[in-house]
Amino acid sequence: MDLEDNRAEGWKYLNKQYFGDGERANYVNIPHVIAMVGLPARGKTYISKKLSRYLNWIGINTRVFNLGEYRRHATSAYTSHEFFRADNKEAMAIRQQCALDALHDVCEWLVKGGEVAVFDATNSTRERRRMIRDIVVHKMGFKLFFVESICDDPRIIEQNIMEVKVSSPDYTNIQNTDNVLNDFLLRIEHYKEKYEPLEENLESDYSFMKIYDTGEKVVVHKHEGHIQSRIVYYLMNIHIVPRTIYLTRHGESLHNIEGRIGGDSALSPRGQQYAGALAGYIETQAIPGLRVWTSWMRRAIQTVKDVKAPQERWKALNEIDAGICEEMTYAEIQEKYPSDFNARDANKFAYRYPRGESYEDLVARLEPVIMELERQGNVLVVSHQAVMRCLLAYFLDKSAADAGRVRLPRGTRRARRRRRRHAPPSPAGQYRTSHATRHMPHATYHTVIKLTPVAYGCREEHVALAVAAVDTHRPRPPVSTARHTPHDTCHTPHTTR
Amino acid sequence: MDLEDNRAEGWKYLNKQYFGDGERANYVNIPHVIAMVGLPARGKTYISKKLSRYLNWIGINTRVFNLGEYRRHATSAYTSHEFFRADNKEAMAIRQQCALDALHDVCEWLVKGGEVAVFDATNSTRERRRMIRDIVVHKMGFKLFFVESICDDPRIIEQNIMEVKVSSPDYTNIQNTDNVLNDFLLRIEHYKEKYEPLEENLESDYSFMKIYDTGEKVVVHKHEGHIQSRIVYYLMNIHIVPRTIYLTRHGESLHNIEGRIGGDSALSPRGQQYAGALAGYIETQAIPGLRVWTSWMRRAIQTVKDVKAPQERWKALNEIDAGICEEMTYAEIQEKYPSDFNARDANKFAYRYPRGESYEDLVARLEPVIMELERQGNVLVVSHQAVMRCLLAYFLDKSAADAGRVRLPRGTRRARRRRRRHAPPSPAGQYRTSHATRHMPHATYHTVIKLTPVAYGCREEHVALAVAAVDTHRPRPPVSTARHTPHDTCHTPHTTR
Repeated sequence: MDLEDNRAEGWKYLNKQYFGDGERANYVNIPHVIAMVGLPARGKTYISKKLSRYLNWIGINTRVFNLGEYRRHATSAYTSHEFFRADNKEAMAIRQQCALDALHDVCEWLVKGGEVAVFDATNSTRERRRMIRDIVVHKMGFKLFFVESICDDPRIIEQNIMEVKVSSPDYTNIQNTDNVLNDFLLRIEHYKEKYEPLEENLESDYSFMKIYDTGEKVVVHKHEGHIQSRIVYYLMNIHIVPRTIYLTRHGESLHNIEGRIGGDSALSPRGQQYAGALAGYIETQAIPGLRVWTSWMRRAIQTVKDVKAPQERWKALNEIDAGICEEMTYAEIQEKYPSDFNARDANKFAYRYPRGESYEDLVARLEPVIMELERQGNVLVVSHQAVMRCLLAYFLDKSAADAGRVRLPRGTRRARRRRRRHAPPSPAGQYRTSHATRHMPHATYHTVIKLTPVAYGCREEHVALAVAAVDTHRPRPPVSTARHTPHDTCHTPHTTR
Repeated sequence: MDLEDNRAEGWKYLNKQYFGDGERANYVNIPHVIAMVGLPARGKTYISKKLSRYLNWIGINTRVFNLGEYRRHATSAYTSHEFFRADNKEAMAIRQQCALDALHDVCEWLVKGGEVAVFDATNSTRERRRMIRDIVVHKMGFKLFFVESICDDPRIIEQNIMEVKVSSPDYTNIQNTDNVLNDFLLRIEHYKEKYEPLEENLESDYSFMKIYDTGEKVVVHKHEGHIQSRIVYYLMNIHIVPRTIYLTRHGESLHNIEGRIGGDSALSPRGQQYAGALAGYIETQAIPGLRVWTSWMRRAIQTVKDVKAPQERWKALNEIDAGICEEMTYAEIQEKYPSDFNARDANKFAYRYPRGESYEDLVARLEPVIMELERQGNVLVVSHQAVMRCLLAYFLDKSAADAGRVRLPRGTRRARRRRRRHAPPSPAGQYRTSHATRHMPHATYHTVIKLTPVAYGCREEHVALAVAAVDTHRPRPPVSTARHTPHDTCHTPHTTR
């Protein structure tokens, strides 16, 4: 294939922008392109999205570039599998151009500060992979890692088609799912004609990973560096067996009632009531092979004391360490450390409690928990507000930086609804509402969040058990009120981190 | 092979001891047997020892059982490769019995609380692997993971033989290394006759990992659970390319002079002098591809400001967080928190500074650093006393629990030598010496530790650069003086963590 396409100058320009005219000194983190390989319906998009979610969550700026979207953009409405015939010259030219367009965008995004670009396409011929290598490695100087998904189990393929292809924009005009299935199977046949799996003897210089039958077997070839290692480790651990993760905060604690953060207090009477309700709920669900994970904190352990399932304690699930602010109320913190209080509101992710932790620290220590959760079947995780926010951020595809503001059911939903009912949604209104409930903390229900993987994401359900708890959510103050006075502090609701 | 050998009752007994008569409730961490597979001189012992070192360091109780040692114990002095002929019936019976003995010890050790046993043997036939599976999985209910090392590069094999086999106890009577090489190559030939590599179709139920050509390619089959994942990840990252790691503490800081721990102070004038000397030393060494890693702390960054090599900062390399004791002297800590002070002396590994970290926490946060160091070539790591202790513990094969007492050159060697010269090596003597130098802190030299992998371990060299520094080592008090009085505190030397 001729690399001197009409974009040759463009590549040179991009390259120059990235590397400058001289050598880059102290050059450490080379951008990566992860190029998927495999026939249609082998889970390439699933892997791409999941990988991107994980890398973003651990703080590596990652984006998926899906070739199908470029193709849909470049062509009129999809008619049938005929488009993908190997002898359809016109379509082939379009597809080639789309690949170049997508790669150009990949490189441009990496030049502008992206760290990992996942190129989600079939890349099913050696010629195509050589083209990618020439652009990504030779022209741009980036790292390239191929991830091939191989699966010959017709049940998995059909399930995949029915789950995600039926709802593809390609098939909005075809109502009958059987017709979709048949068209898609023919599309796969066209690809099969020219498919060349990665071959270590023929493509001996490439770094790649081959995943067989959704992880039953994995082959890794010439992987190099930190990011590739992490990717291999992560993709080795994900599985596609259906299961559900149950997340809940511990029951209301004595400190919660007083509005104090941190510490290691016991459950309040209502918290104990929740422990009973939770055990009852879990029993009614009769969840096969359930495991229970808690932090090492008393309030978490007490919350599951009657749950009948094998239990494990994780230090990594302990609540964020609030350092010198441990066991204080927000009012006390603001009075004693007003500048810290404001710094935290300005950037909750990076803010580290003096002698304590930030959300950023939390994500780092929760990473092994996530890895282990990926490996497990049904799990009930009982932890704490900040920890649950980070875990939810992962499952709901938020960047690590957004974790600090993820909404949790206990302490948000009901309280917000009330706020909305009682006052206009203005900054002033928020405080007025808080003020109104100053001597009567928000009440809300203890809630279990059920997370069930579906297609490319997670279904989230909230199961409120009928045991009330104080609201511990402190909404982010609007920018204009970032400088609190000691007076307005007293009005902010209770413990939130 | 007949499993009803004369130890059948023994297995049952072990099994009963382990599982009791009923089911084990809340049973979570199943002991693991990692069984090596491969021809002689394929690095099985290297992998076994390195893996065991890593697992122990991260806190998983691991032990290697080397079949060669059982064989040497069971037979008179080794004469020649003839012992390993496939048609040597008598020898075969001995070898079979040795394997059973070793497996029995493996299981007994796991029953008594061991977590991972590495069975370092060729295990090169399917029959042998089936026997291991029957005992480990079926009789004992443990997990089994095979690790096969495959290498056909004659240079690597010969290098391996010359490095480690020549010094084997088998060859103490043979002086000529050529004779050793020839005998060992014939030994390999005997194994080759019956060697059956792991085969996913024939051994489809096994969890295993195959490592080709020291990591060039890796195949993983049906791995399950946390420990196996960690093992795969680790073994994917180790390499055998020769290189050297240079470790040093930052130069003397202003806090060091005052005997204060933690904080983020700048370098003292002598510390700055060391920064210059270090840059000069590194320059004279002309180390190919050197990278420099430091913590994010000022004293570490200032120490390498003139070193000419690409630099990276690691938050994970920051000094242990001393929590409420940050920036205090030991005398102040003991006066203000005497019970903490004593608790720390009693168990330095598990002791966590209030609102701060323990050595245990430190090992957890340093694990990614170790993983990355394994992947790198030549690296200069500039960090802090507690962090360096943990890193050294890994390279010098100390358990995590011993990390807290690893000796570092700056602050130990010269000071101790002086102590030995001036006073008897009794507990009282230590304090007398400290007392004598109370107003004149121990002086010692800033030192670089060079670590070079050799055979199954690491060669450690200390390069003292001629720049003095205060001694910051506080020796562990003898048990009898564990209860300090405020008076004797003043005599303990300076900042040590």
